[in-house]
Amino acid sequence: MSRIRVAVDMDEVIADTYGAMLGWLVGRHGAQWSPTSLQGRQIFDVLTPEIAETLREAMHDGAFFADLPIVEGSQSALAAIASRCELFITSAAMEFPNSLGPKFLWLQRHFPFVDPLNVVFCGDKSIIAADCLIDDNARHFQRFGGQGIVFSSPHNVNVTDYPRIRHWSEAMGVLAEAFPGAL
Amino acid sequence: MSRIRVAVDMDEVIADTYGAMLGWLVGRHGAQWSPTSLQGRQIFDVLTPEIAETLREAMHDGAFFADLPIVEGSQSALAAIASRCELFITSAAMEFPNSLGPKFLWLQRHFPFVDPLNVVFCGDKSIIAADCLIDDNARHFQRFGGQGIVFSSPHNVNVTDYPRIRHWSEAMGVLAEAFPGAL
Repeated sequence: MSRIRVAVDMDEVIADTYGAMLGWLVGRHGAQWSPTSLQGRQIFDVLTPEIAETLREAMHDGAFFADLPIVEGSQSALAAIASRCELFITSAAMEFPNSLGPKFLWLQRHFPFVDPLNVVFCGDKSIIAADCLIDDNARHFQRFGGQGIVFSSPHNVNVTDYPRIRHWSEAMGVLAEAFPGAL
Repeated sequence: MSRIRVAVDMDEVIADTYGAMLGWLVGRHGAQWSPTSLQGRQIFDVLTPEIAETLREAMHDGAFFADLPIVEGSQSALAAIASRCELFITSAAMEFPNSLGPKFLWLQRHFPFVDPLNVVFCGDKSIIAADCLIDDNARHFQRFGGQGIVFSSPHNVNVTDYPRIRHWSEAMGVLAEAFPGAL
């Protein structure tokens, strides 16, 4: 039996882009936001157009993505997945073209066991041929051909239609349940 | 009936990377190579290790990819494909991470009708979910789930296992033959 192919998103799943955005906003504009106040909403949806623009400008500088914190537990979980499955990293990065290079180098530095040939930068994730996709944005699952698995983030707490990983320590258990006998 | 999804490679298919490499080599190292002398072989396979290294160094500078010439006929052919099919651009770019940003901007400049969300940078193209893939490297077809269509380049003249597009003017005809009734 061939190994299942697992695609894993980057931002807010293995790279704490969410925390970096929040930190940047609080540092620049004061403590107006907290993870609690953002429950069920995307960061860009709660900002004024003017503040959203300053954040977008900062993110258009690729350096924003060069030193993102690592999501807790993601390195060991992905190492375990890579040992039993075919692991791909699939990141929607086209809104910020300057982030492409820094994101690739970040992956090589923090996830050296990920085959560089298994890194994908895309926009519409329906182009991904994989058995499952672990992502914080459930909208990507609607046209995806495999099984969507939502990775918890404050903005998606109300999503109920897919299996959920709340912390990377749960990942192998959730995958084993979604693909009985495949791990 | 939903539209077929056509994935199209960049280098040597819509961007004349081959010509740019050859031009760089001849400019730097003299006229030792020509398209004729390279029939059936990849450029990197005929270079000495030392000269290959100088070319790789030049390509690691993203600027190499910023102003690549456009392959003849590709703009009008892709516009026609985009009007009748779901068009994705799928480029293997991970060997040169600094090329990612410049390649994306090149696409936006020369192929403005390509939806930015339909651009994919990857390594192993078996991750691509599409009905067909137009690519100069037939090795990508081996694990690809759809129909491979080889785009002519001096290095692939001996490949015979797939439908072939020798010039972009042939593209719609080859697609119509591969997918009867779908266009």
